[in-house]
Amino acid sequence: MTDGFEDLGYARADTGRERRLGLPEVVYGPGKTAEQIIGVVGALLAANEGPVLVTRLEEATAAVVAAAVPGGEYDPAARLLVWRPASPRAFRVVVVSAGTSDAPVAAEAAAVARAIGLDVIELRDVGVAGIHRLLGEVEVLAGADAVICIAGMEGALPSVVGGLVGCPVIAVPTSVGYGATLEGVTPLLAMLSSCAPGLVVVNIDSGFGAAVAAHRMAVRR
Amino acid sequence: MTDGFEDLGYARADTGRERRLGLPEVVYGPGKTAEQIIGVVGALLAANEGPVLVTRLEEATAAVVAAAVPGGEYDPAARLLVWRPASPRAFRVVVVSAGTSDAPVAAEAAAVARAIGLDVIELRDVGVAGIHRLLGEVEVLAGADAVICIAGMEGALPSVVGGLVGCPVIAVPTSVGYGATLEGVTPLLAMLSSCAPGLVVVNIDSGFGAAVAAHRMAVRR
Amino acid sequence: MTDGFEDLGYARADTGRERRLGLPEVVYGPGKTAEQIIGVVGALLAANEGPVLVTRLEEATAAVVAAAVPGGEYDPAARLLVWRPASPRAFRVVVVSAGTSDAPVAAEAAAVARAIGLDVIELRDVGVAGIHRLLGEVEVLAGADAVICIAGMEGALPSVVGGLVGCPVIAVPTSVGYGATLEGVTPLLAMLSSCAPGLVVVNIDSGFGAAVAAHRMAVRR
Amino acid sequence: MTDGFEDLGYARADTGRERRLGLPEVVYGPGKTAEQIIGVVGALLAANEGPVLVTRLEEATAAVVAAAVPGGEYDPAARLLVWRPASPRAFRVVVVSAGTSDAPVAAEAAAVARAIGLDVIELRDVGVAGIHRLLGEVEVLAGADAVICIAGMEGALPSVVGGLVGCPVIAVPTSVGYGATLEGVTPLLAMLSSCAPGLVVVNIDSGFGAAVAAHRMAVRR
Amino acid sequence: MTDGFEDLGYARADTGRERRLGLPEVVYGPGKTAEQIIGVVGALLAANEGPVLVTRLEEATAAVVAAAVPGGEYDPAARLLVWRPASPRAFRVVVVSAGTSDAPVAAEAAAVARAIGLDVIELRDVGVAGIHRLLGEVEVLAGADAVICIAGMEGALPSVVGGLVGCPVIAVPTSVGYGATLEGVTPLLAMLSSCAPGLVVVNIDSGFGAAVAAHRMAVRR
Amino acid sequence: MTDGFEDLGYARADTGRERRLGLPEVVYGPGKTAEQIIGVVGALLAANEGPVLVTRLEEATAAVVAAAVPGGEYDPAARLLVWRPASPRAFRVVVVSAGTSDAPVAAEAAAVARAIGLDVIELRDVGVAGIHRLLGEVEVLAGADAVICIAGMEGALPSVVGGLVGCPVIAVPTSVGYGATLEGVTPLLAMLSSCAPGLVVVNIDSGFGAAVAAHRMAVRR
Amino acid sequence: MTDGFEDLGYARADTGRERRLGLPEVVYGPGKTAEQIIGVVGALLAANEGPVLVTRLEEATAAVVAAAVPGGEYDPAARLLVWRPASPRAFRVVVVSAGTSDAPVAAEAAAVARAIGLDVIELRDVGVAGIHRLLGEVEVLAGADAVICIAGMEGALPSVVGGLVGCPVIAVPTSVGYGATLEGVTPLLAMLSSCAPGLVVVNIDSGFGAAVAAHRMAVRR
Amino acid sequence: MTDGFEDLGYARADTGRERRLGLPEVVYGPGKTAEQIIGVVGALLAANEGPVLVTRLEEATAAVVAAAVPGGEYDPAARLLVWRPASPRAFRVVVVSAGTSDAPVAAEAAAVARAIGLDVIELRDVGVAGIHRLLGEVEVLAGADAVICIAGMEGALPSVVGGLVGCPVIAVPTSVGYGATLEGVTPLLAMLSSCAPGLVVVNIDSGFGAAVAAHRMAVRR
Repeated sequence: MTDGFEDLGYARADTGRERRLGLPEVVYGPGKTAEQIIGVVGALLAANEGPVLVTRLEEATAAVVAAAVPGGEYDPAARLLVWRPASPRAFRVVVVSAGTSDAPVAAEAAAVARAIGLDVIELRDVGVAGIHRLLGEVEVLAGADAVICIAGMEGALPSVVGGLVGCPVIAVPTSVGYGATLEGVTPLLAMLSSCAPGLVVVNIDSGFGAAVAAHRMAVRR
Repeated sequence: MTDGFEDLGYARADTGRERRLGLPEVVYGPGKTAEQIIGVVGALLAANEGPVLVTRLEEATAAVVAAAVPGGEYDPAARLLVWRPASPRAFRVVVVSAGTSDAPVAAEAAAVARAIGLDVIELRDVGVAGIHRLLGEVEVLAGADAVICIAGMEGALPSVVGGLVGCPVIAVPTSVGYGATLEGVTPLLAMLSSCAPGLVVVNIDSGFGAAVAAHRMAVRR
Repeated sequence: MTDGFEDLGYARADTGRERRLGLPEVVYGPGKTAEQIIGVVGALLAANEGPVLVTRLEEATAAVVAAAVPGGEYDPAARLLVWRPASPRAFRVVVVSAGTSDAPVAAEAAAVARAIGLDVIELRDVGVAGIHRLLGEVEVLAGADAVICIAGMEGALPSVVGGLVGCPVIAVPTSVGYGATLEGVTPLLAMLSSCAPGLVVVNIDSGFGAAVAAHRMAVRR
Repeated sequence: MTDGFEDLGYARADTGRERRLGLPEVVYGPGKTAEQIIGVVGALLAANEGPVLVTRLEEATAAVVAAAVPGGEYDPAARLLVWRPASPRAFRVVVVSAGTSDAPVAAEAAAVARAIGLDVIELRDVGVAGIHRLLGEVEVLAGADAVICIAGMEGALPSVVGGLVGCPVIAVPTSVGYGATLEGVTPLLAMLSSCAPGLVVVNIDSGFGAAVAAHRMAVRR
Repeated sequence: MTDGFEDLGYARADTGRERRLGLPEVVYGPGKTAEQIIGVVGALLAANEGPVLVTRLEEATAAVVAAAVPGGEYDPAARLLVWRPASPRAFRVVVVSAGTSDAPVAAEAAAVARAIGLDVIELRDVGVAGIHRLLGEVEVLAGADAVICIAGMEGALPSVVGGLVGCPVIAVPTSVGYGATLEGVTPLLAMLSSCAPGLVVVNIDSGFGAAVAAHRMAVRR
Repeated sequence: MTDGFEDLGYARADTGRERRLGLPEVVYGPGKTAEQIIGVVGALLAANEGPVLVTRLEEATAAVVAAAVPGGEYDPAARLLVWRPASPRAFRVVVVSAGTSDAPVAAEAAAVARAIGLDVIELRDVGVAGIHRLLGEVEVLAGADAVICIAGMEGALPSVVGGLVGCPVIAVPTSVGYGATLEGVTPLLAMLSSCAPGLVVVNIDSGFGAAVAAHRMAVRR
Repeated sequence: MTDGFEDLGYARADTGRERRLGLPEVVYGPGKTAEQIIGVVGALLAANEGPVLVTRLEEATAAVVAAAVPGGEYDPAARLLVWRPASPRAFRVVVVSAGTSDAPVAAEAAAVARAIGLDVIELRDVGVAGIHRLLGEVEVLAGADAVICIAGMEGALPSVVGGLVGCPVIAVPTSVGYGATLEGVTPLLAMLSSCAPGLVVVNIDSGFGAAVAAHRMAVRR
Repeated sequence: MTDGFEDLGYARADTGRERRLGLPEVVYGPGKTAEQIIGVVGALLAANEGPVLVTRLEEATAAVVAAAVPGGEYDPAARLLVWRPASPRAFRVVVVSAGTSDAPVAAEAAAVARAIGLDVIELRDVGVAGIHRLLGEVEVLAGADAVICIAGMEGALPSVVGGLVGCPVIAVPTSVGYGATLEGVTPLLAMLSSCAPGLVVVNIDSGFGAAVAAHRMAVRR
């Protein structure tokens, strides 16, 4: 336990994380002021060599931060601010989403995955109520090193995908829907209960978590 | 409100239900003694002309009741005791189940549906993790007047079926599974949240409810 | 699986759904831009012959869409935008609602049902606390091919209706009420637990789902 | 706060409760040994003048206790052991139950109510799926000083009763049913959400609680 | 079932409720337009003789309604609009509340109770963390025909009150608190689980429900 | 991080815990074989100087273990097996329980507290429905260095105690009760929501946890 | 029970609490008007000698109150208004928080603890995903008389801390996070389920509760 | 979709799964008769070349099946029956478990992983309350291609592990614990809410699911 951190008072930037995990600490935007983000990002850029990301960042705050710390690129669909994106690895992630309402989560998953060096393809609106839309893409799926599979409502899509491919399937439930979907709890529980073997699940709406999970798989190839 | 009932003290047999609903009252077995069941069945047989059923009846009690009230036929897989089964209508119900563990619920749905005069076909073990097993049966599905679709775990099967056929799809969640399936609550919520339009749902493990729902559809043709 | 879809980038319009289900895909408004809706509606109008609907659409967006795609009619009570409504079938749907607060859900159910060709009658404010209001309408109920039964709070109405008529009863829980109603979860659970045989249930506030369920029943007559 | 209690070591018999509430403390059987029950009952008989009750007592334990403390009468259907039942008051309680499976709860409510001096009439199996069974008894209901209304499953009965009579309606949810009934939580929530004004609710399966609630109403007349 | 109702299109005013229950139908304000309220109130005033109430009515809407239907009195703390308040009966209701944050619910309970003819006394801020505040008021409690006992957070107050008096104790959980109070679900469950015998419970924040429950007790004296 | 552990294959006995926490690791009995318990206890006795405890141990297993490891004392009411009990400190813990059914949890709390060197007094059956039973013991409470306050059902007792004394109040919810108590979840939530300031809460039925919490308070005096 | 209170009409200020608990009543700000707060604070300042606090007070209201009642100091990060802070005791509280988003809860805990006379040190952003940040502070932890341990998300930090120190660990779950964190319910349940012995838990986001719990420990030294 | 299945009547063995996923279908034992298992295993052995597994199989049933289908090896700790185990790949899985009670889940994960060709090392009883036990094994963790991390109670272990290594961490919640652990739901939610980036989660107690998830990662190397 000899690696370090930098104490900024309001935060301890985990500057040893890149050495331990192969990826610098990622900054979660909500609840932080622009000043705090600028401070943490500065510390992370100085102490690491890899990409530095701020997630779930509103456009206005992003503008302030980007002005203060040069070199950042903001993606409004993904609400992601990135410095020093990693150069791409030969690890193909297919980001599959069930409906158009799942687009923001898919955008975050894809943008984070690209920023940390994964090779991303997107398949949108292939929900199970029109199963032929998915079945027409089995070849794309067959080329995946990992599939990130995003769905709200009943969350059935990962079960079908998990029966079609042998690579890792990372299921992301979304809070899309109303009533019995319980703001994403229903697809979360459904994905955990899947009859397809070996699916893995991340938190509701966590496109970020899915992308980093794929990165963990990529670094051990 | 002029139709009647017969007061047996411990129960009021709803003898007017056949006239109102087209089907005599069905007796729910659990929590009733053999003597009580014998009494209610006798009242229902006397006051109606159609089939009389006792559901969820254990074999031992069924034997006592069947000995006392002649003409009853017991189906142990469905835990169903039937007198005067209805003659079949030209209304085809396809009972589709996702896994072999869903068999008891499928058996109840099929046996009740047959006893009340529906024409039943069964498709078993066509869960979505091997979607080709279902897709190989689209012609059978196309011939259905109604589909009863039974699944536990993530309850994804009705969403796929509902995107393949235009007839009514009655989804039945089962308590099959463990952990995050929450004894059937997860597939129940998933089915209610389905992205396939116009699915309808009944209670967990209620093969009986699904069969009677199909009967309601059949009587209005 | 030879029928097709149209890939719009942000969506895959399921242009084969009319052929499979007898009804074109219906567009769910929330979370889509006016531009996206215009694109999908255009694709669906071109590839199908039947009615095209956008549900849960706010008035302002509806105006933009209706201006861009001629022939659409907007119903503000139902928040529904419709092109090419279907000509009526001889399938009578009685939409019964328990209280005046359930009116928006009832309006959606009735408007969708009419747009897809069903023959609709409405009975409002016949909740069980004044049971004579419902009992005075048994003849209207007797003429139904299907009843859509809408209630919030304790959701008791479908149980009473289900004991009066033999036709399908589609129960729709609403999020009306406060405290122990748990935003519609209580009437949802109550309807699924009903002592009336063969009731079927759709998602909370889903007047749309109930109407399409009735359509599934109508197409198989 | 000058009234007393008797410290038995394992229990403090609240000997002042009869003076404060008009009814001696009632002993809840589960989790107590026969010896403990004998001790508490003895203390309560000695310190009070009114009826002494042990609820939810299994037959075998009841036999041991009754042998040790003379004068007790055991009712196996209600699982109730009573000494010195109160002489009846002119307060009519109508115990209404929805189904035959609710019988044990109804039996406890009726037996406790009689033991503490209320005038009890029972109406059984008048569930809302055959509403005419209840409507045929409106005159009996009209004579009630209070109605105890017992139902499992969707718990709809109290809402209908509460719209028919102006006297207090004490709703008792039962754990009868399966799946979505959630062991009585569904009818509990439904009763609390009732559209009928001024219903009051007690715990699941608590026939005892309902009877004592009625007693509280009787003592203030 | 010969008593009537008036069909206003958007509502069926239950004009027979006063005859059946001793109290005209009460209008629940939320979700209704001023015009609808004016219509229903007019129908109820014409068909009944007793008090007519609109609950949970915002001040602005109340002003519109009161201007259109003369004789109404608005209580902003209780959000209640009343015509023809009943003359007081000799039935004393003590409204006890645990904390100052429970004041709006207590205000509704007290105002509704007065409007329907009950004799009301209020005890505020007597929560159990300073139990001497309640114990100093036992004589006021002893004079009650019924106690309405209002508490949020852990909802302990009714258990203490229920052990001090023998009259009915109507427990009202409130949504006061945060975190583990779960918006009133925690005190609701706690009150239903009370160790004090014979407590009865109404919905979260339902001062109205508690007042009508007390009225039901009063009319049978 | 230089202190050690002993790897037994099936377990790593945390032999450094006494040095870090002032108390050796305590063995949780369920799910372990007698052989495993014997092994762990042996390692803990050898590496530490203080008391060694096994909790929630059934009598039969306790006999086997006690025979193999001399010097252990078994308390069947507390289901606790103890070697080398600590000599008493001058830290007074008052264990207060609400009802007789809470006795097993109170027994565990008291026995563990004594075994680890605390000075214990017990007050039983002082539930809030007879509040005078508690108020008669305020002097005992005033002498406490910490109160362990045990209650099931609505869990109200700690709120009252917390308003009477300034010392730490450790609330322990129990699974006593039925229906709305939700197996202890209701008193757990109620205790966390308490209006009495500064209460702390441990897991349902965890008399053990409360005793160790009191020990943590004692060691810092 | 001879100590008193002051009845302000809208509130009963518990003026005896300082005598009983060693700390005057603390005013919970939400739901109270500035006038009410001014009244209660005045009564508490007059009747007690110790510190008077108002918690969760918005800045605007605080300004009004502070203008009316001289001597108050407002801490905007903690949303706390304090008169007559207590002089410090030799009781060291270490406030440990897992992430920067937990800062508001940590600020409340620290500010309240200081105001009531405890000696506070803060350790921020030492979450378990970079465990070396915490392990670098074991000496600070070793000097604590009590640790207040604040964490949202999975709430793991108190388990690690509880294994490092023998003093009391007061766990505070926060509502930081999204999806499966369920607004703080997940870390709440996790902390109650901790494998570290003798942790105690307070309500979600209750920095105030934790500080008062520490005070209870301090007064008994 | 040209690959096949074998219809056994009671089951459709998915004989194409090995071709699609790189692993034959695995048989879930519960709810199947020995005869059914024998039939499915026979079909899978005939149609595939890889390992055939039956999970969660009781010893008695395993003996019957093993006698009928030669070559099977039964592991009672893992409740696993295996034919034709795969030859090991160079993919190291470290199975880490928090407590001795988690042993059955760890045994299943390890045994399944070995049977499907992964290289397994086990680390037991390294829960976070004695964090030095885990920190002493960082080198073993550093050699992992994937970590399966098993914990019940508060489920904190994966968060710590996820901060130490960059490879995939598959978190498995267990149903170990009582009260607030909610039979595994608490660690499940905690793991999904983890502050460590990129953790993935499988169903409660699903050692099997974790092993297959690791296999999916291995096949893409």
